[in-house]
Amino acid sequence: MTTDLEARLAAQAVLSQQARELVDAVVLTDVDEGEMAAVAAELVALTERLGAVRRDGPRPHELGPDGMFRHLGNAVVGACNPHALPLVVRRTADGVKADVMFRPSHEGPPASVHGGVSAMILDHLLGEAVAASGRAGMTGTLTLRYLRPVPYGEPLAGTAAVTRTEGRKTWAEGAITLPDGTRLAEATGLFVTPALWR
Amino acid sequence: MTTDLEARLAAQAVLSQQARELVDAVVLTDVDEGEMAAVAAELVALTERLGAVRRDGPRPHELGPDGMFRHLGNAVVGACNPHALPLVVRRTADGVKADVMFRPSHEGPPASVHGGVSAMILDHLLGEAVAASGRAGMTGTLTLRYLRPVPYGEPLAGTAAVTRTEGRKTWAEGAITLPDGTRLAEATGLFVTPALWR
Repeated sequence: MTTDLEARLAAQAVLSQQARELVDAVVLTDVDEGEMAAVAAELVALTERLGAVRRDGPRPHELGPDGMFRHLGNAVVGACNPHALPLVVRRTADGVKADVMFRPSHEGPPASVHGGVSAMILDHLLGEAVAASGRAGMTGTLTLRYLRPVPYGEPLAGTAAVTRTEGRKTWAEGAITLPDGTRLAEATGLFVTPALWR
Repeated sequence: MTTDLEARLAAQAVLSQQARELVDAVVLTDVDEGEMAAVAAELVALTERLGAVRRDGPRPHELGPDGMFRHLGNAVVGACNPHALPLVVRRTADGVKADVMFRPSHEGPPASVHGGVSAMILDHLLGEAVAASGRAGMTGTLTLRYLRPVPYGEPLAGTAAVTRTEGRKTWAEGAITLPDGTRLAEATGLFVTPALWR
Protein backbone atom coordinates (compact mmCIF):
# COMPACT_ATOMS: atom_id res chain seq x y z
CA MET A 1 0.00 0.00 0.00
CA THR A 2 2.83 2.38 0.93
CA THR A 3 4.64 1.33 -2.24
CA ASP A 4 1.52 2.01 -4.29
CA LEU A 5 1.20 5.45 -2.72
CA GLU A 6 4.87 6.26 -3.29
CA ALA A 7 4.59 5.21 -6.96
CA ARG A 8 1.51 7.43 -7.31
CA LEU A 9 3.35 10.36 -5.72
CA ALA A 10 6.40 9.86 -7.92
CA ALA A 11 4.17 9.95 -11.01
CA GLN A 12 2.41 13.06 -9.69
CA ALA A 13 5.80 14.75 -9.17
CA VAL A 14 6.77 14.03 -12.80
CA LEU A 15 3.38 15.31 -13.97
CA SER A 16 3.80 18.45 -11.84
CA GLN A 17 7.23 19.17 -13.28
CA GLN A 18 5.83 18.82 -16.80
CA ALA A 19 2.98 21.18 -15.90
CA ARG A 20 5.59 23.75 -14.71
CA GLU A 21 7.32 23.51 -18.08
CA LEU A 22 3.97 23.92 -19.82
CA VAL A 23 3.25 27.06 -17.77
CA ASP A 24 6.50 28.65 -18.92
CA ALA A 25 5.82 27.58 -22.50
CA VAL A 26 2.44 29.36 -22.26
CA VAL A 27 4.14 32.50 -20.93
CA LEU A 28 6.74 32.53 -23.71
CA THR A 29 4.77 31.23 -26.68
CA ASP A 30 4.13 33.30 -29.76
CA VAL A 31 2.45 30.68 -31.97
CA ASP A 32 -0.61 31.98 -33.82
CA GLU A 33 -4.01 32.21 -32.15
CA GLY A 34 -5.38 29.14 -33.95
CA GLU A 35 -2.61 26.99 -32.51
CA MET A 36 -3.08 28.54 -29.06
CA ALA A 37 -6.78 27.68 -29.22
CA ALA A 38 -6.01 24.14 -30.34
CA VAL A 39 -3.59 23.61 -27.45
CA ALA A 40 -6.10 25.13 -25.02
CA ALA A 41 -8.70 22.61 -26.22
CA GLU A 42 -6.24 19.76 -25.60
CA LEU A 43 -5.64 21.11 -22.09
CA VAL A 44 -9.38 21.03 -21.40
CA ALA A 45 -9.40 17.33 -22.30
CA LEU A 46 -6.34 16.58 -20.13
CA THR A 47 -7.82 18.54 -17.22
CA GLU A 48 -10.94 16.38 -17.46
CA ARG A 49 -8.87 13.18 -17.53
CA LEU A 50 -7.02 14.22 -14.35
CA GLY A 51 -10.34 15.12 -12.71
CA ALA A 52 -11.71 11.59 -13.19
CA VAL A 53 -10.45 10.75 -9.66
CA ARG A 54 -10.18 13.88 -7.60
CA ARG A 55 -8.99 14.47 -4.02
CA ASP A 56 -10.62 17.02 -1.69
CA GLY A 57 -7.38 18.94 -1.31
CA PRO A 58 -3.68 18.92 -2.21
CA ARG A 59 -1.39 16.14 -0.90
CA PRO A 60 -1.35 16.62 2.90
CA HIS A 61 1.23 17.37 5.54
CA GLU A 62 2.51 13.91 6.51
CA LEU A 63 5.49 11.83 7.54
CA GLY A 64 7.25 10.29 4.54
CA PRO A 65 8.68 6.76 4.44
CA ASP A 66 12.06 8.20 5.53
CA GLY A 67 10.43 9.51 8.72
CA MET A 68 10.79 13.11 7.58
CA PHE A 69 7.89 15.54 7.52
CA ARG A 70 6.78 16.51 4.01
CA HIS A 71 4.03 18.49 2.28
CA LEU A 72 4.03 17.43 -1.35
CA GLY A 73 0.97 19.58 -2.12
CA ASN A 74 2.57 22.79 -0.80
CA ALA A 75 2.37 25.93 -2.97
CA VAL A 76 6.08 26.72 -2.52
CA VAL A 77 7.91 23.44 -1.91
CA GLY A 78 5.49 20.75 -3.03
CA ALA A 79 6.91 18.37 -5.63
CA CYS A 80 3.28 17.41 -6.41
CA ASN A 81 2.18 21.03 -6.91
CA PRO A 82 3.07 22.76 -10.21
CA HIS A 83 2.73 26.17 -8.50
CA ALA A 84 5.80 25.34 -6.39
CA LEU A 85 9.24 26.23 -7.74
CA PRO A 86 9.70 23.63 -6.22
CA LEU A 87 12.06 24.74 -3.50
CA VAL A 88 14.19 21.89 -2.14
CA VAL A 89 15.22 22.89 1.38
CA ARG A 90 18.20 21.31 3.17
CA ARG A 91 18.96 21.66 6.85
CA THR A 92 22.37 23.09 7.70
CA ALA A 93 24.25 23.39 10.98
CA ASP A 94 22.58 26.71 11.77
CA GLY A 95 19.40 26.81 9.72
CA VAL A 96 18.27 25.95 6.20
CA LYS A 97 19.57 26.42 2.68
CA ALA A 98 17.98 25.92 -0.76
CA ASP A 99 19.01 26.16 -4.37
CA VAL A 100 16.62 28.59 -6.05
CA MET A 101 15.99 28.90 -9.79
CA PHE A 102 13.22 31.29 -10.78
CA ARG A 103 11.46 30.95 -14.13
CA PRO A 104 10.08 33.40 -16.73
CA SER A 105 6.61 32.89 -15.25
CA HIS A 106 7.88 34.66 -12.10
CA GLU A 107 8.49 37.97 -13.88
CA GLY A 108 7.53 41.33 -12.35
CA PRO A 109 9.87 44.18 -13.38
CA PRO A 110 11.40 43.63 -16.85
CA ALA A 111 13.72 40.57 -16.83
CA SER A 112 13.45 40.35 -13.02
CA VAL A 113 11.51 38.30 -10.52
CA HIS A 114 8.35 39.85 -9.06
CA GLY A 115 9.01 41.18 -5.55
CA GLY A 116 5.96 39.28 -4.36
CA VAL A 117 7.46 36.02 -5.61
CA SER A 118 10.69 36.72 -3.69
CA ALA A 119 8.51 37.46 -0.64
CA MET A 120 6.75 34.11 -1.08
CA ILE A 121 10.05 32.23 -1.10
CA LEU A 122 11.48 34.11 1.88
CA ASP A 123 8.33 33.58 3.95
CA HIS A 124 8.69 29.86 3.36
CA LEU A 125 12.44 29.70 4.04
CA LEU A 126 12.09 31.50 7.36
CA GLY A 127 9.26 29.16 8.38
CA GLU A 128 11.46 26.16 7.51
CA ALA A 129 14.31 27.54 9.63
CA VAL A 130 11.91 27.92 12.55
CA ALA A 131 10.60 24.37 12.04
CA ALA A 132 14.17 23.03 11.79
CA SER A 133 14.88 24.54 15.20
CA GLY A 134 12.11 22.37 16.63
CA ARG A 135 9.77 25.29 17.26
CA ALA A 136 7.26 25.08 14.38
CA GLY A 137 4.98 28.08 14.18
CA MET A 138 2.77 30.24 12.03
CA THR A 139 4.14 33.47 10.53
CA GLY A 140 3.14 36.41 12.72
CA THR A 141 4.94 39.24 10.96
CA LEU A 142 7.40 39.27 8.09
CA THR A 143 9.49 42.21 6.91
CA LEU A 144 11.16 42.17 3.50
CA ARG A 145 13.92 44.40 2.19
CA TYR A 146 14.55 44.50 -1.54
CA LEU A 147 18.18 45.30 -2.25
CA ARG A 148 18.80 44.46 -5.93
CA PRO A 149 16.82 43.05 -8.86
CA VAL A 150 16.40 39.26 -8.60
CA PRO A 151 17.10 37.52 -11.93
CA TYR A 152 15.30 34.46 -13.24
CA GLY A 153 16.92 31.61 -15.17
CA GLU A 154 20.07 31.78 -13.04
CA PRO A 155 21.10 29.65 -10.08
CA LEU A 156 20.53 31.53 -6.81
CA ALA A 157 20.54 30.46 -3.18
CA GLY A 158 18.13 30.93 -0.32
CA THR A 159 19.18 30.77 3.33
CA ALA A 160 17.43 31.26 6.65
CA ALA A 161 18.22 30.82 10.35
CA VAL A 162 16.63 31.42 13.73
CA THR A 163 18.03 34.50 15.48
CA ARG A 164 16.14 34.63 18.80
CA THR A 165 13.45 32.85 20.83
CA GLU A 166 11.20 33.97 23.69
CA GLY A 167 8.33 31.82 24.99
CA ARG A 168 6.15 30.87 22.03
CA LYS A 169 7.85 33.46 19.79
CA THR A 170 10.72 32.72 17.43
CA TRP A 171 12.52 35.24 15.24
CA ALA A 172 14.29 34.25 12.03
CA GLU A 173 16.10 35.97 9.20
CA GLY A 174 16.99 34.94 5.69
CA ALA A 175 18.02 36.06 2.23
CA ILE A 176 18.00 35.30 -1.48
CA THR A 177 21.57 35.61 -2.72
CA LEU A 178 23.75 35.28 -5.78
CA PRO A 179 26.09 32.24 -5.74
CA ASP A 180 28.85 34.56 -4.44
CA GLY A 181 26.70 35.50 -1.44
CA THR A 182 25.59 38.95 -2.63
CA ARG A 183 22.21 39.63 -1.01
CA LEU A 184 19.37 40.47 -3.42
CA ALA A 185 16.45 40.41 -0.98
CA GLU A 186 16.30 39.69 2.73
CA ALA A 187 13.67 39.11 5.35
CA THR A 188 13.16 38.99 9.08
CA GLY A 189 10.13 37.34 10.61
CA LEU A 190 8.39 36.59 13.89
CA PHE A 191 6.80 33.16 14.16
CA VAL A 192 4.37 32.15 16.88
CA THR A 193 3.81 28.56 18.02
CA PRO A 194 0.06 28.08 18.59
CA ALA A 195 -0.60 27.22 22.27
CA LEU A 196 -2.31 24.00 21.13
CA TRP A 197 0.87 22.75 19.44
CA ARG A 198 2.91 22.81 22.67
CA MET B 1 -1.38 44.70 -36.89
CA THR B 2 -2.73 45.91 -33.54
CA THR B 3 -5.84 43.83 -34.14
CA ASP B 4 -3.68 40.78 -34.88
CA LEU B 5 -1.75 41.33 -31.67
CA GLU B 6 -4.91 41.76 -29.63
CA ALA B 7 -6.35 38.54 -31.08
CA ARG B 8 -3.11 36.75 -30.23
CA LEU B 9 -3.19 38.11 -26.67
CA ALA B 10 -6.84 37.16 -26.22
CA ALA B 11 -6.02 33.60 -27.30
CA GLN B 12 -3.02 33.54 -24.94
CA ALA B 13 -5.27 34.68 -22.07
CA VAL B 14 -7.69 31.81 -22.76
CA LEU B 15 -4.76 29.38 -22.97
CA SER B 16 -3.37 30.74 -19.68
CA GLN B 17 -6.69 30.31 -17.89
CA GLN B 18 -6.88 26.72 -19.13
CA ALA B 19 -3.31 26.11 -17.90
CA ARG B 20 -4.37 27.42 -14.45
CA GLU B 21 -7.20 24.91 -14.38
CA LEU B 22 -4.79 22.17 -15.43
CA VAL B 23 -2.43 23.11 -12.57
CA ASP B 24 -5.22 22.70 -10.02
CA ALA B 25 -6.28 19.43 -11.65
CA VAL B 26 -2.67 18.18 -11.24
CA VAL B 27 -2.69 19.23 -7.56
CA LEU B 28 -6.00 17.45 -6.85
CA THR B 29 -5.79 14.41 -9.11
CA ASP B 30 -5.73 10.89 -7.76
CA VAL B 31 -5.88 8.94 -11.05
CA ASP B 32 -3.49 6.00 -11.19
CA GLU B 33 0.17 6.43 -12.05
CA GLY B 34 -0.24 5.05 -15.59
CA GLU B 35 -2.81 7.73 -16.39
CA MET B 36 -0.62 10.41 -14.77
CA ALA B 37 2.30 9.31 -16.95
CA ALA B 38 0.08 9.33 -20.06
CA VAL B 39 -1.13 12.88 -19.33
CA ALA B 40 2.46 14.00 -18.61
CA ALA B 41 3.50 12.66 -22.03
CA GLU B 42 0.70 14.66 -23.67
CA LEU B 43 1.90 17.77 -21.82
CA VAL B 44 5.40 17.25 -23.21
CA ALA B 45 3.94 17.29 -26.73
CA LEU B 46 1.83 20.42 -26.05
CA THR B 47 4.83 22.18 -24.49
CA GLU B 48 6.78 21.47 -27.66
CA ARG B 49 3.95 22.80 -29.86
CA LEU B 50 3.86 26.07 -27.86
CA GLY B 51 7.64 26.35 -28.10
CA ALA B 52 7.56 26.28 -31.92
CA VAL B 53 7.52 30.11 -31.85
CA ARG B 54 9.02 31.38 -28.65
CA ARG B 55 9.48 34.91 -27.28
CA ASP B 56 12.57 35.98 -25.30
CA GLY B 57 10.47 36.90 -22.27
CA PRO B 58 6.90 37.20 -21.01
CA ARG B 59 4.52 39.76 -22.57
CA PRO B 60 6.03 43.16 -21.72
CA HIS B 61 4.99 46.22 -19.78
CA GLU B 62 3.15 48.31 -22.40
CA LEU B 63 0.28 50.66 -23.10
CA GLY B 64 -2.85 48.78 -24.16
CA PRO B 65 -5.25 49.94 -26.91
CA ASP B 66 -7.35 51.64 -24.19
CA GLY B 67 -4.36 53.82 -23.26
CA MET B 68 -3.96 52.03 -19.93
CA PHE B 69 -0.68 50.51 -18.77
CA ARG B 70 -0.70 46.71 -18.67
CA HIS B 71 1.68 43.82 -18.06
CA LEU B 72 0.00 40.70 -19.42
CA GLY B 73 3.07 38.56 -18.65
CA ASN B 74 3.15 39.53 -14.96
CA ALA B 75 3.50 36.74 -12.37
CA VAL B 76 0.67 38.12 -10.22
CA VAL B 77 -1.74 40.01 -12.48
CA GLY B 78 -0.85 38.85 -15.99
CA ALA B 79 -3.80 37.46 -17.95
CA CYS B 80 -1.21 35.83 -20.26
CA ASN B 81 0.68 34.18 -17.38
CA PRO B 82 -0.79 31.02 -15.81
CA HIS B 83 1.20 31.69 -12.61
CA ALA B 84 -0.96 34.79 -11.99
CA LEU B 85 -4.20 34.39 -10.04
CA PRO B 86 -4.84 36.57 -12.12
CA LEU B 87 -5.56 39.53 -9.92
CA VAL B 88 -7.80 42.10 -11.62
CA VAL B 89 -7.10 45.43 -9.96
CA ARG B 90 -9.54 48.36 -10.10
CA ARG B 91 -8.72 51.91 -9.11
CA THR B 92 -10.95 53.42 -6.44
CA ALA B 93 -11.27 56.98 -5.11
CA ASP B 94 -8.49 56.43 -2.58
CA GLY B 95 -6.43 53.51 -3.88
CA VAL B 96 -7.04 50.12 -5.49
CA LYS B 97 -9.32 47.15 -4.94
CA ALA B 98 -9.36 43.62 -6.35
CA ASP B 99 -11.53 40.55 -6.12
CA VAL B 100 -9.30 37.70 -4.96
CA MET B 101 -10.06 33.98 -5.30
CA PHE B 102 -7.25 31.67 -4.22
CA ARG B 103 -7.07 28.11 -5.54
CA PRO B 104 -6.06 24.71 -4.07
CA SER B 105 -2.62 25.13 -5.69
CA HIS B 106 -2.02 28.03 -3.24
CA GLU B 107 -2.20 25.80 -0.14
CA GLY B 108 0.26 26.13 2.76
CA PRO B 109 -1.29 25.25 6.16
CA PRO B 110 -4.08 22.66 5.84
CA ALA B 111 -7.05 24.10 3.88
CA SER B 112 -5.47 27.57 3.98
CA VAL B 113 -3.49 29.76 1.64
CA HIS B 114 0.32 29.76 2.06
CA GLY B 115 1.43 32.91 3.90
CA GLY B 116 3.96 33.50 1.14
CA VAL B 117 1.18 33.56 -1.46
CA SER B 118 -0.71 36.17 0.59
CA ALA B 119 2.55 38.13 0.80
CA MET B 120 2.91 37.96 -2.99
CA ILE B 121 -0.59 39.38 -3.51
CA LEU B 122 -0.15 42.15 -0.93
CA ASP B 123 3.21 43.20 -2.39
CA HIS B 124 1.54 43.63 -5.74
CA LEU B 125 -1.55 45.46 -4.42
CA LEU B 126 0.55 48.00 -2.53
CA GLY B 127 2.66 48.58 -5.64
CA GLU B 128 -0.51 49.16 -7.68
CA ALA B 129 -1.79 51.68 -5.12
CA VAL B 130 1.52 53.54 -5.36
CA ALA B 131 1.36 53.47 -9.18
CA ALA B 132 -2.27 54.65 -9.10
CA SER B 133 -1.14 57.68 -7.09
CA GLY B 134 1.14 58.64 -9.98
CA ARG B 135 4.33 57.83 -8.08
CA ALA B 136 5.37 54.43 -9.52
CA GLY B 137 8.22 52.84 -7.62
CA MET B 138 10.01 49.67 -6.66
CA THR B 139 9.26 47.99 -3.34
CA GLY B 140 11.87 49.03 -0.77
CA THR B 141 10.53 47.31 2.33
CA LEU B 142 7.32 45.41 2.97
CA THR B 143 5.97 44.30 6.35
CA LEU B 144 3.25 41.69 6.56
CA ARG B 145 1.03 40.82 9.52
CA TYR B 146 -0.87 37.56 9.44
CA LEU B 147 -4.08 37.83 11.46
CA ARG B 148 -6.25 34.82 10.54
CA PRO B 149 -6.04 31.83 8.17
CA VAL B 150 -6.76 32.83 4.54
CA PRO B 151 -9.15 30.37 2.85
CA TYR B 152 -9.01 29.30 -0.79
CA GLY B 153 -12.01 28.69 -3.02
CA GLU B 154 -13.93 31.58 -1.46
CA PRO B 155 -14.40 35.13 -2.73
CA LEU B 156 -12.11 37.54 -0.85
CA ALA B 157 -11.11 41.14 -1.44
CA GLY B 158 -7.77 42.91 -1.63
CA THR B 159 -7.38 46.64 -0.99
CA ALA B 160 -4.47 49.06 -0.83
CA ALA B 161 -3.92 52.80 -0.56
CA VAL B 162 -1.08 55.29 -0.25
CA THR B 163 -0.70 56.63 3.29
CA ARG B 164 2.22 59.08 3.05
CA THR B 165 4.79 60.51 0.62
CA GLU B 166 8.17 62.19 1.10
CA GLY B 167 10.48 62.99 -1.81
CA ARG B 168 10.99 59.78 -3.81
CA LYS B 169 9.48 57.68 -1.02
CA THR B 170 5.87 56.57 -0.87
CA TRP B 171 4.27 54.52 1.91
CA ALA B 172 1.21 52.36 1.32
CA GLU B 173 -0.88 49.90 3.28
CA GLY B 174 -3.31 47.19 2.28
CA ALA B 175 -5.14 44.05 3.34
CA ILE B 176 -6.73 40.80 2.24
CA THR B 177 -10.22 40.69 3.73
CA LEU B 178 -13.37 38.62 3.89
CA PRO B 179 -16.34 40.08 1.98
CA ASP B 180 -17.56 41.61 5.28
CA GLY B 181 -14.27 43.50 5.67
CA THR B 182 -12.67 41.24 8.31
CA ARG B 183 -8.90 41.53 7.85
CA LEU B 184 -7.04 38.24 7.32
CA ALA B 185 -3.59 39.59 6.44
CA GLU B 186 -2.31 43.13 6.11
CA ALA B 187 0.78 44.88 4.86
CA THR B 188 2.57 48.19 4.97
CA GLY B 189 5.28 49.05 2.46
CA LEU B 190 7.77 51.69 1.46
CA PHE B 191 8.21 52.23 -2.26
CA VAL B 192 11.02 54.21 -3.83
CA THR B 193 10.83 55.89 -7.22
CA PRO B 194 14.17 55.35 -9.01
CA ALA B 195 15.84 58.70 -9.69
CA LEU B 196 15.89 57.84 -13.42
CA TRP B 197 12.07 57.56 -13.55
CA ARG B 198 11.50 61.16 -12.36
